[in-house]
Amino acid sequence: MSDTNQPGSDPLALSDGSQSADAGVLIEAIDGRDAEASREWLDKADAADAVHALAGLSDAQRAVLLELVPSDVAADVVAMLPEPQAIDAMEEIDASKAAEILEEMPSDERADVIKAMDEDDAEAILTALDADTAESIRSLAAYEEGSAGAIMLTEYLAFSETLTVRDVLADLEQNAERYGDYNIQYTYVIDASGVLRGVLPLRNLLLARRSTALSEVMIARPISVRDTLGIDDLRTIFDEYAFMGLPVVDEQGRLLGVVQRVDLQIADAEEADNLYRQSQGIVGGEELRSMPLLLRSRRRLAWLSANIVLNIIAASMIALQQDTLEAVIALAVFLPIISDMSGCSGNQSVAVTMRELTLGILRPKDAMRVLVKEGLLGLLNGCALGLLIGGVAYLWKGNIYLSGVVGVSLALNTMIAVCFGGLIPLLLKKLKADPALASGPILTTITDMCGFFIVLSIASTMVSRLA
Amino acid sequence: MSDTNQPGSDPLALSDGSQSADAGVLIEAIDGRDAEASREWLDKADAADAVHALAGLSDAQRAVLLELVPSDVAADVVAMLPEPQAIDAMEEIDASKAAEILEEMPSDERADVIKAMDEDDAEAILTALDADTAESIRSLAAYEEGSAGAIMLTEYLAFSETLTVRDVLADLEQNAERYGDYNIQYTYVIDASGVLRGVLPLRNLLLARRSTALSEVMIARPISVRDTLGIDDLRTIFDEYAFMGLPVVDEQGRLLGVVQRVDLQIADAEEADNLYRQSQGIVGGEELRSMPLLLRSRRRLAWLSANIVLNIIAASMIALQQDTLEAVIALAVFLPIISDMSGCSGNQSVAVTMRELTLGILRPKDAMRVLVKEGLLGLLNGCALGLLIGGVAYLWKGNIYLSGVVGVSLALNTMIAVCFGGLIPLLLKKLKADPALASGPILTTITDMCGFFIVLSIASTMVSRLA
Repeated sequence: MSDTNQPGSDPLALSDGSQSADAGVLIEAIDGRDAEASREWLDKADAADAVHALAGLSDAQRAVLLELVPSDVAADVVAMLPEPQAIDAMEEIDASKAAEILEEMPSDERADVIKAMDEDDAEAILTALDADTAESIRSLAAYEEGSAGAIMLTEYLAFSETLTVRDVLADLEQNAERYGDYNIQYTYVIDASGVLRGVLPLRNLLLARRSTALSEVMIARPISVRDTLGIDDLRTIFDEYAFMGLPVVDEQGRLLGVVQRVDLQIADAEEADNLYRQSQGIVGGEELRSMPLLLRSRRRLAWLSANIVLNIIAASMIALQQDTLEAVIALAVFLPIISDMSGCSGNQSVAVTMRELTLGILRPKDAMRVLVKEGLLGLLNGCALGLLIGGVAYLWKGNIYLSGVVGVSLALNTMIAVCFGGLIPLLLKKLKADPALASGPILTTITDMCGFFIVLSIASTMVSRLA
Repeated sequence: MSDTNQPGSDPLALSDGSQSADAGVLIEAIDGRDAEASREWLDKADAADAVHALAGLSDAQRAVLLELVPSDVAADVVAMLPEPQAIDAMEEIDASKAAEILEEMPSDERADVIKAMDEDDAEAILTALDADTAESIRSLAAYEEGSAGAIMLTEYLAFSETLTVRDVLADLEQNAERYGDYNIQYTYVIDASGVLRGVLPLRNLLLARRSTALSEVMIARPISVRDTLGIDDLRTIFDEYAFMGLPVVDEQGRLLGVVQRVDLQIADAEEADNLYRQSQGIVGGEELRSMPLLLRSRRRLAWLSANIVLNIIAASMIALQQDTLEAVIALAVFLPIISDMSGCSGNQSVAVTMRELTLGILRPKDAMRVLVKEGLLGLLNGCALGLLIGGVAYLWKGNIYLSGVVGVSLALNTMIAVCFGGLIPLLLKKLKADPALASGPILTTITDMCGFFIVLSIASTMVSRLA
């Protein structure tokens, strides 16, 4: 072990001393139309710095950069950009250059780019591509979002069922160059008309006697999926089986491509990310601050204007009992506390239901169980919070009646909030609506209305003792 | 193509006609200690039904089930349970059975299970395992959460640098059985003391002349990572390079295991999921409704009691200007609307910043850019919402001064909210605090305080015109 430190034998470790690449240098290179310097900067910058610098360019600068560098480097740049910026840049540049860049991308990403572009720009690029590639992109782009056809890779290896293991190994050895870009973890066995007959994991190939016929070493009657199968069904199948990839076939059983487990996991991660953004009111497409102000404003306002209507409805509860409030003005301090705290408690309940739905351990028919579990928890937490706020009210005003009204109201409204919070996502799911999007606003409206109503109603029965 | 529909040649498609497995049958089998029936139920049920049914069992029933079925089936059951339930069940059963189940799991998951268990239970299981396995689990469990050592797999293939491609292919063919459970997408080349010399992707092996020495076909001086490297650095490396897996080495450069890209992606998906839950106030560990009531209550209260303090601070702004409110009681209706709406606007801004942070296109030093972008958007959306709420106020009371106070307050507070919303996560990140956890409550407190203060302060200058 004494020789492990000699140069050349040491595994490369992550260099901590790398200095952060200067975005200014890149901008200068682009503005000076200096292809060599742009390329050099991209070569040298580490990925995180490049992502940050590229996102900070103007739309025009990004387009110039794509035009300046060779197509394979440009394809890397496109992959590093957030999707909306990537699409804008591809729309901006010359169609023939965009076509070259597209050819450098994996088949599943090509179709995504074309689908996201303006129709005219997409058409121009497709025309600039050779007919076969364009046709293949068109057919991939026609698949529904998230279907097996839309996320499958079309680079795969398929061999005729009449060959032997030795034939295949020889073919791989000879065509090494051509297969360089393929994902060859699985190979497939097909008949003369392209119909899938079996799956041949590379490991089976490696671990088999060389004289064996493919039909003997392959997994016959393999699990395959139709190109039109949706993402939820795909997830079920990948949950059920340990496969890294599944063959995708058409109506006649002909092999079309491969859908990989990792693509599904990436789709899942995006979904979890969306869940958070939607719960915070970023719903109309993914926002980046580099987008035009009016677009950002309009998208955010769409959500806000629905919310303000719900807010006005809830606040009208206060207007209805204005006299009570006027007589006991101290209650005004507690109204927002009670509505906000109930909202918080209810949102916790929403989050647990969303989690249990994702894990697959909760279904709409379990509503009664949720109600019991949340009801008990609401009783407990409602009493705790009610005592706390009642105590604060007593310390402030020294009026035990006021303290009681405030404490009991928060306790009751907490119970209501956690029960509704647990059930609303289930109900929305049952109604095929998106629980991530609508649960929050619906819950807040209910808890605000109930909160205001409960405090002011109880108070109205004992105004003289509260004032 | 006319023969594609004959039986036996058709690829298996997902059967849509499968009826949902009856959880009652499983419970009956468990309660009757019927090993055969339990196993049969698990064999037949589809994954989604099994997950739902298993989560619905009592703790005791889950433990009985693990004892009843063979270890490999029990390991599948454990994999289907949400983590807290899986750990409880493993703690519940006999240590020797738990040890057998553990042996059926991949090396990285074993250590996770042991780490999550009570110390006594974990120790009992480790004692029941053979000394080598126990030692390997202990050393994996000692790694920090998320470090390369903690998520690496220790099943890998390594060959001596003195062999040829032919030797390796022959070894694979001969030891097919033994390597059956290994992930052999990459193999590694080591010297006599176990120091990593090169990486040998399976595809290189397949696509190489058989007589080549490994040292020639391997990728020499490969990128490797130290076992102690943290998850953020790992992510940077996987972003930079297209590798599916990276070798993990110790201080002397000896090969310890392999960390796979997919494990990192799974960790990322979990993080995005956590982000949503934390933003909704589920912070003290992952909650399932099957957990004890008092534990669930206590964890949720921890978050709520911090929140109620912030709420009281914000509401004290109302107490300070109670006289103004008493004189113009109509304002009480608008207080919650203004604070809620500003909160919504601010949360949108938080979500965009969180997204841009995740994408790596925003860094704390970009604060000024965020301020400008959000300030302009706040001006626009603030005016839109202010006009709306001002209009509603005018329709209701016909008082243009009231309408003006309410509208201007909402406009101002929206600007404040979106600016703070955009900046708070950046500031927390800079301070090494968790933006997902703290952004919401801090933002709400600021927007509530400012909202109450602005409305009542402006109103106090013109009480006679408002009443």
